[in-house]
Amino acid sequence: MTAETLRLGIAGLGTVGTGVLKLVGEHADLISQRAGRRLVVTAVSARDRSKDRGVDLTGPAWFDDPVQLARDADVDVVLELIGGADGVAKTVVETAIAQGKPVVTANKALLAIHGPALAAAADRAGITLAYEAAVAGGIPAIKGIRDGLAANPLTAVFGILNGTCNYILTEMRESGREFAEVLAEAQALGYAEADPRFDVDGIDAAHKLAILAGLSFNGRIAFDDVHVEGIRPIAAVDIAYAEELGYRIKLLGIARRGSAGSNRVEMRVHPCLVPLDTPIATVEGVFNAVVATGGPVDQIMMVGRGAGAGPTASAVVADVIDVARGFRAPALGMPTGTLPDLAPVPMDERFGAYYVRLRVIDRPGVIADIGAAMRDEGVSIESFLQKGRATVGGTVPVILVTHECAEASLRRALGPIAGSATVVDDPVVIRIEPLAA
Amino acid sequence: MTAETLRLGIAGLGTVGTGVLKLVGEHADLISQRAGRRLVVTAVSARDRSKDRGVDLTGPAWFDDPVQLARDADVDVVLELIGGADGVAKTVVETAIAQGKPVVTANKALLAIHGPALAAAADRAGITLAYEAAVAGGIPAIKGIRDGLAANPLTAVFGILNGTCNYILTEMRESGREFAEVLAEAQALGYAEADPRFDVDGIDAAHKLAILAGLSFNGRIAFDDVHVEGIRPIAAVDIAYAEELGYRIKLLGIARRGSAGSNRVEMRVHPCLVPLDTPIATVEGVFNAVVATGGPVDQIMMVGRGAGAGPTASAVVADVIDVARGFRAPALGMPTGTLPDLAPVPMDERFGAYYVRLRVIDRPGVIADIGAAMRDEGVSIESFLQKGRATVGGTVPVILVTHECAEASLRRALGPIAGSATVVDDPVVIRIEPLAA
Repeated sequence: MTAETLRLGIAGLGTVGTGVLKLVGEHADLISQRAGRRLVVTAVSARDRSKDRGVDLTGPAWFDDPVQLARDADVDVVLELIGGADGVAKTVVETAIAQGKPVVTANKALLAIHGPALAAAADRAGITLAYEAAVAGGIPAIKGIRDGLAANPLTAVFGILNGTCNYILTEMRESGREFAEVLAEAQALGYAEADPRFDVDGIDAAHKLAILAGLSFNGRIAFDDVHVEGIRPIAAVDIAYAEELGYRIKLLGIARRGSAGSNRVEMRVHPCLVPLDTPIATVEGVFNAVVATGGPVDQIMMVGRGAGAGPTASAVVADVIDVARGFRAPALGMPTGTLPDLAPVPMDERFGAYYVRLRVIDRPGVIADIGAAMRDEGVSIESFLQKGRATVGGTVPVILVTHECAEASLRRALGPIAGSATVVDDPVVIRIEPLAA
Repeated sequence: MTAETLRLGIAGLGTVGTGVLKLVGEHADLISQRAGRRLVVTAVSARDRSKDRGVDLTGPAWFDDPVQLARDADVDVVLELIGGADGVAKTVVETAIAQGKPVVTANKALLAIHGPALAAAADRAGITLAYEAAVAGGIPAIKGIRDGLAANPLTAVFGILNGTCNYILTEMRESGREFAEVLAEAQALGYAEADPRFDVDGIDAAHKLAILAGLSFNGRIAFDDVHVEGIRPIAAVDIAYAEELGYRIKLLGIARRGSAGSNRVEMRVHPCLVPLDTPIATVEGVFNAVVATGGPVDQIMMVGRGAGAGPTASAVVADVIDVARGFRAPALGMPTGTLPDLAPVPMDERFGAYYVRLRVIDRPGVIADIGAAMRDEGVSIESFLQKGRATVGGTVPVILVTHECAEASLRRALGPIAGSATVVDDPVVIRIEPLAA
């Protein structure tokens, strides 16, 4: 080992930062042999110096200000593990790039919103901006797509990108319980945050999808173009009916490139019915999955733990090893100057099948009215499910599954249905995704 | 794009070589943008110049002798796509390394048998020896382990490493037909070779396993240390009984590192019963899967097409893009000088459960005799299955599932059983693999 030591500055000592410290400490020899040089943490920064994090902090220099850490002359690589789309995390990354220092970050919000600008700055500076840990935790999805699938013109990338939602949906299915109860349990077990909105409303998954799509399709994506729905509307009855129909409900992030030559891309996060015999349907609990499709490779699926100190630290340190080895690829897979802006495909244009749950007053003619409204918009119905008789307030759930249609047609048909005196509550609409290549 | 063109010499124009030519031709712009420089095929070599391969060969220089191609001054990177553990493929790779030229190869036999020596030569020459295409076709398993999981002390790597076997087992299960019939069909469809031995006898999977184990555990492996069994002994009845017991039969390659500090490693390819609810059980048909376990990442599974022109070309060109970008890692993940020799764990030491199928003469006392022989060796039986009555020749199949025991004990118990007058044919033994981390 002749190359000199690589000196790491860790900004942020939460779960991930502490995990990285532990990992590079416990497996220092293995990592340095694989990296070709020794890694040493020379600087750390966090808000509270007195907090006991269960790691030895006597070696590295302490910085109250992570921006000063990024400027420190004894730091070769800056690990931004603070989080948040703006504020100090962004300043730390910008400062490191301005100093010509490689940056490794686990910050999905930052990358989803400011990725194209930061990537351009990193490319201009000729340094690495690495973010394997920002997407799907321990799964090497970024390297898999950027390096492993680099020869393929990818046409779609999708996956289970939020372990909290997948855990909740799995638990709901296995126990038959409702969302609120399972969420409360997940919070008690530490699988869900006290403020669960980022997870259960799909925002976290949307951040990861935006990053994956930008890399897979080599384009600039505006995060606001991602259509986002969460899992709160899913009821136990939906999961049970889905199984009966041969599907499992998953919160997926899906990005699909338009026809060749077009710069339009579907980008959406929402619950889906996926066929039970699709591999991704078998990815359960806190596990994540990333699927990339297109080109001669056809399709690759990667499955692993999407969060947690260990898996995320694994991804952060893998990026550091890349830096140590001298690997450098453009942050978005090709030089940022050549990247087109990718325009979103409006959801109205989605063409596919739908699962619709309505709560109706159980009296003659209701089904006929619904059928007529669908017919008037050219939406044909594959199956109707109604089980049991009216319960609470004389209402009963009715499930209908449509044939493939434009989403705009379905929405138009649902207008009068939702407004009808016999339909109680808003319709719950779940898209059916065959997930064919 | 300021860097100069990277000039490729392709030795071997079979399915893979032709696939690479097509891929770099059809997606030249995308690949050059991702690679950061233009790739041009300047030389090709194959046995028969007159054969129509459906690709334009007017551009590159033709070499009858691939060793001359490796020496050609207009070739920067040598793609060895000839195949075979020895002979000209090996000479081509050695020549390229001696010339200081990076090598990309899809040759699993070569790497499995001569990998450590070639890796050492490549390291001494300071050049890349890349072999993503040698394992699991389009799945970026080598990069996934070498780069994506570089921070993890892996303890096990296993997978479905032969698509032909997985296709045959899937077909046998779905149709209830026997091995010979399904093999013949697979040969007619082009999913199996005219000489199927490399595939169905497990040798191809063993080559890939040896490569994965050497990389995952950073050690030198002697290919002959891999225990190899194929799928010929599997009968339709085994697949049916396995399902009934909650298992699916897969040909797996499994490498498992001994306790920390030990340089012993289990390396074995054989049919397994894997629990139906294990993700790898859902990988069907021609698909491959690679699972790596250990360290903070816990476990990662990668699934994709394990063979064919497109997926294999995808992997070859990804390696070329690495070379173009200037990525260089030691071929075995760390400098070859530091790699220990890994010693095999004898199969007798395997500790686990077993499925055993016996064909017995249907008369009183047979089950008692089998039970006694097992008891005498301390092997306890979890379940006995016998269905129906004697058919051909008055014999009936008996299935027994053992609790966990040392394989040596089971073999000792089976000695007198197989020798008994009431047991016809050799016992069929299939290992049960829970595949827990």
